Amino acid sequence: MLGCVIHGAGDLRVDELPTPEPGPGQALVAVRYGGVCGSDLHYWQRGGVGDFRLREPMVLGHEVVGTVLAYGPGASGPAPGTPVAVHPATPCGACPECRDGRRNVCRDTRYLGSAARTPHVQGGFAAELAVPADQLRPLPQGLPLERAALAEPLSVALHAVRRAGSVAGRHVLVTGAGPIGCLVVAAAKAAGAARVTVTDLLPKALEYARVAGADLLVRADDPDDAGWPDEVDVAIEASGVAAGLDTCLHRVRRGGVVVQLGMLPPGQSPFAGNLVVSREIELRGAFRFDTEFDEALELLAREPSLAGLISAVVPVAEAARAFPLAADRAASCKVLLDFGA
Amino acid sequence: MLGCVIHGAGDLRVDELPTPEPGPGQALVAVRYGGVCGSDLHYWQRGGVGDFRLREPMVLGHEVVGTVLAYGPGASGPAPGTPVAVHPATPCGACPECRDGRRNVCRDTRYLGSAARTPHVQGGFAAELAVPADQLRPLPQGLPLERAALAEPLSVALHAVRRAGSVAGRHVLVTGAGPIGCLVVAAAKAAGAARVTVTDLLPKALEYARVAGADLLVRADDPDDAGWPDEVDVAIEASGVAAGLDTCLHRVRRGGVVVQLGMLPPGQSPFAGNLVVSREIELRGAFRFDTEFDEALELLAREPSLAGLISAVVPVAEAARAFPLAADRAASCKVLLDFGA
Amino acid sequence: MLGCVIHGAGDLRVDELPTPEPGPGQALVAVRYGGVCGSDLHYWQRGGVGDFRLREPMVLGHEVVGTVLAYGPGASGPAPGTPVAVHPATPCGACPECRDGRRNVCRDTRYLGSAARTPHVQGGFAAELAVPADQLRPLPQGLPLERAALAEPLSVALHAVRRAGSVAGRHVLVTGAGPIGCLVVAAAKAAGAARVTVTDLLPKALEYARVAGADLLVRADDPDDAGWPDEVDVAIEASGVAAGLDTCLHRVRRGGVVVQLGMLPPGQSPFAGNLVVSREIELRGAFRFDTEFDEALELLAREPSLAGLISAVVPVAEAARAFPLAADRAASCKVLLDFGA
Amino acid sequence: MLGCVIHGAGDLRVDELPTPEPGPGQALVAVRYGGVCGSDLHYWQRGGVGDFRLREPMVLGHEVVGTVLAYGPGASGPAPGTPVAVHPATPCGACPECRDGRRNVCRDTRYLGSAARTPHVQGGFAAELAVPADQLRPLPQGLPLERAALAEPLSVALHAVRRAGSVAGRHVLVTGAGPIGCLVVAAAKAAGAARVTVTDLLPKALEYARVAGADLLVRADDPDDAGWPDEVDVAIEASGVAAGLDTCLHRVRRGGVVVQLGMLPPGQSPFAGNLVVSREIELRGAFRFDTEFDEALELLAREPSLAGLISAVVPVAEAARAFPLAADRAASCKVLLDFGA
Repeated sequence: MLGCVIHGAGDLRVDELPTPEPGPGQALVAVRYGGVCGSDLHYWQRGGVGDFRLREPMVLGHEVVGTVLAYGPGASGPAPGTPVAVHPATPCGACPECRDGRRNVCRDTRYLGSAARTPHVQGGFAAELAVPADQLRPLPQGLPLERAALAEPLSVALHAVRRAGSVAGRHVLVTGAGPIGCLVVAAAKAAGAARVTVTDLLPKALEYARVAGADLLVRADDPDDAGWPDEVDVAIEASGVAAGLDTCLHRVRRGGVVVQLGMLPPGQSPFAGNLVVSREIELRGAFRFDTEFDEALELLAREPSLAGLISAVVPVAEAARAFPLAADRAASCKVLLDFGA
Repeated sequence: MLGCVIHGAGDLRVDELPTPEPGPGQALVAVRYGGVCGSDLHYWQRGGVGDFRLREPMVLGHEVVGTVLAYGPGASGPAPGTPVAVHPATPCGACPECRDGRRNVCRDTRYLGSAARTPHVQGGFAAELAVPADQLRPLPQGLPLERAALAEPLSVALHAVRRAGSVAGRHVLVTGAGPIGCLVVAAAKAAGAARVTVTDLLPKALEYARVAGADLLVRADDPDDAGWPDEVDVAIEASGVAAGLDTCLHRVRRGGVVVQLGMLPPGQSPFAGNLVVSREIELRGAFRFDTEFDEALELLAREPSLAGLISAVVPVAEAARAFPLAADRAASCKVLLDFGA
Repeated sequence: MLGCVIHGAGDLRVDELPTPEPGPGQALVAVRYGGVCGSDLHYWQRGGVGDFRLREPMVLGHEVVGTVLAYGPGASGPAPGTPVAVHPATPCGACPECRDGRRNVCRDTRYLGSAARTPHVQGGFAAELAVPADQLRPLPQGLPLERAALAEPLSVALHAVRRAGSVAGRHVLVTGAGPIGCLVVAAAKAAGAARVTVTDLLPKALEYARVAGADLLVRADDPDDAGWPDEVDVAIEASGVAAGLDTCLHRVRRGGVVVQLGMLPPGQSPFAGNLVVSREIELRGAFRFDTEFDEALELLAREPSLAGLISAVVPVAEAARAFPLAADRAASCKVLLDFGA
Repeated sequence: MLGCVIHGAGDLRVDELPTPEPGPGQALVAVRYGGVCGSDLHYWQRGGVGDFRLREPMVLGHEVVGTVLAYGPGASGPAPGTPVAVHPATPCGACPECRDGRRNVCRDTRYLGSAARTPHVQGGFAAELAVPADQLRPLPQGLPLERAALAEPLSVALHAVRRAGSVAGRHVLVTGAGPIGCLVVAAAKAAGAARVTVTDLLPKALEYARVAGADLLVRADDPDDAGWPDEVDVAIEASGVAAGLDTCLHRVRRGGVVVQLGMLPPGQSPFAGNLVVSREIELRGAFRFDTEFDEALELLAREPSLAGLISAVVPVAEAARAFPLAADRAASCKVLLDFGA
């Protein structure tokens, strides 16, 4: 079968891989779509994500959907042929975070397509994938497979909004309108935000934010843009640059919450620490997600318009074209690989 | 009467001031003790605190206790002669923060001895002080005036601990063992912390932290100190330097809370932003206090040992000696001015 | 005629433009090749470069070569039909910097395809270009037009090396192996560097650095890479990220020179300032160039191998493909637009 | 004999020490005055300087003057009884820096009263001191011992000005008017600077800068101060805070030089890196000195007014008072210990 393997920075290949056998407790899935994530792009562009560095070839991909093929010994789940989304995380269940119900920051988790541990956890950008059967989720009524491929990044977004506390009736600022920023917009609107303002440098990205339901679009580099809010209740940083965090800290109200979702450059970043003190801001990190995956599928079923964030579907054989396309923020929002074309 | 007036950076004078008259709703207090705060030292050392800059002479002081002298028109309160502590804040009551119960970050507050607004709010380092009568607090049974002078900084500490959420049964790290750091230790212990570890560069400061109830003392500049905890539940940054924040972010557990209480240098500070993200740390600013003032008085009444944090009591006439003494971290914890000697 | 016009972030168009007339003192050039520069990519990706922001549509391009077509009133130069490279800068000649011989930092310069001033200076990505006649340079014997398109970025590199002082016999570290980093390698070797070590995250970029003459290639994210030098004489930062500068400051010898050539993110960047002090490092900015343009043409004539840094030549009509290709560091070094195809 | 020994952070003692014997090549000096340096204060306040940390008790002091007592085997020099200043550095003479004439950054130097190496190099705050005889300098005609105690910090200042290149006829900005900043002013004037502007938060510090010869005094925290220069030729950072460096980078002319002399806080500091690039600023570290020591003595002989920077002379028995006094920037410039009183 074909799989999309990163061999090192800048060295992405579509390799012929052995077909997996489902082990005990595992399901075998015929993968159909896989969304290209910012972290996939980082593995490709620089051979690592944050502090994790590739040490061996790894199948990329953790945003995958497909249909059930079979089960391994002792495993059961949706009938073969059922369309499913795959929850990418297998928390250890034993560490303090897991026992504390914070499985998304489990210190010993296995996450599809991640070099956080060695040997790396192979990912889902392949024609067939064996995963623990309890990570399968049948799709809600009426949710097509293609749109369901947004479930993973939407879970990230739902989790970030949850980290902000209640946003119902509030004015939420989102800095950065990449795929994650756009899905944060959708998640905030779904959680009852009265108004969502989004900033980005790129008009095209802001257009996608509009598709996701943004109320106000602001050009991040234009201090004279009429859309700049004086004060917001909550700010969610989804750009991953220090300038975005600075915007959040200056625009959030006293006592407000800023959620840092975007990964910043490695090492130390500059920040306006005294605003955090004198305005009693809460700066909360947001990382991955847990049960939000199920909510994400429900929300996608209810909101067909979110399919508008899928800017391209590219056959796996053309992965070499899909990655630069996904990296081109002037053109793309979410790019899917198609493993069944 | 004598008052301690800052005329500009490095220009501290004991001036003869006119005796105040209590206005409508005001009480007149015969001030006995005033604690020298880090912000008083900053006004003296650099003519400002954070972004606030002296623009006219100002009586310093916001940690004051004394006895009631009289009331102005329409004001009432504890009988003349009653020993009282003075809550230094008069929030506006009308701004969004006040209406939201966050009076400590009121955008229009009046705070004793602060240049945050112009004309400045004159402070309490003077023989007599007129303040709104409802800011007086009679002392609890058995609390001597001198020890009561710790009520204001202890309120700051109690508020910082409150900002951390429940610390009962938890391991709390405090970076910085100045007067505020020491009182944070006491506040954390009072709130049920199972263990409090304190770091500082100075052994003398750590000794004071021990007086305040610290369980473990760590030399901040010694990476080999055996006391370094692998992981704490909560960290409270009370040193006001970037290195302290870095220690907090690296030592707090995944999903843990870091409270930034110390004011950092002006402008941008470096911080390990990606730890905030990938470990889902909550970095919460803590600023001043509100109702914690009453708790502080109760706690001081219960804990006579906290008087051990008062390292010197200096007659106001010798204020020129008291300020450098208070700034000398190798010798001092809290220094009080005595206006009644 | 066709021109490559940036209308805003992410909005690059190939427009039909009016053919220019050469004014007094001007030459008219039939542009053949134009190199896509990092700054062109920034205008496209984020609508600005550093602190400069697009305020009106602008023809991009400042790395252009072609043949002379005609001259305006009072202008003369190489005969029509002569192949020429165009020096992109017109310094004012009157400001303190110009009078001081530092024309490259002229505060009032006009630079092709730059939004530093408004109205913007239109650039050279068009079939015909009118420029002051004294900015034309006939090509040295044997230098083909295509390779001559590297003259402008090579001038930047030569200037950066000049800023480092003499590198003859020295070990030079270059962080970042994009087109500029690679040309810095070539410039350093041409200036007699004994050894040039280059770091990058991407093996493909390092391969290009090898083409440019690098002696040692180091994976920037691998602390265990055997190629890391203990100490270099000179370091030239060409990556534009804080991590690159940190590498330079830690690897340069005491008393050594670090040249910062790459533009860093907007605002404040973190740096190891105390190394600058205690090791007496000289950190020198390098910006554009002046007379190095003529040296660049000579060097290109002598070094045919530098043509290997041109990774693609794309007809102007396909500019929409050329820009993402140039931005793809896993595949590209220098991408040229062809206006004569 | 009495000596001033630092036993740890905050633990300064006047100890009875054994009288030293001069070894081969050494001279024995009866120390009379020793200037308290910022680094002495750091050892006292935090148990270390920069990355150096106290690991054993150490006699402080490297700014010492006295009279010759005797010589050890094979050593000769000024006759016993001659007043001398002591050059505090013994570079190794063998490392690349020494061979390159950069002895001040010798990687293996011995410097009086420094914890840079272990065992530490004991310092000169003691009644008698044995040092290599070739580090003695007889005082120039007419230079009293007390004023000669400024030779070491003035050497630091002269070196920093030398690092700036020629300042003759130039406008020089000095940020920070502590003892070192003031001596930089004097050094810059001596080197022919046309105008020297000094910034500090403290009026008292600025008064000392006036004594040292400053032309313009600016309150560092007052953006409306009329004295702010639009543009200076050279800036020397002597405050050791990031805000001072920011001032230098924004005020120096394009192509200008900024000398970083003040030690910044440990770790990374924020800086305006893109100004360094786009204005081609040279940021040069300055560390200690070498032959400038002899120039310093000559300059002190010529400039009796520099004695005005000595704000107090304190008997060694009262060292516990001298250190806080030296740390009090609102009152002090240079404080000397007197070992012969």
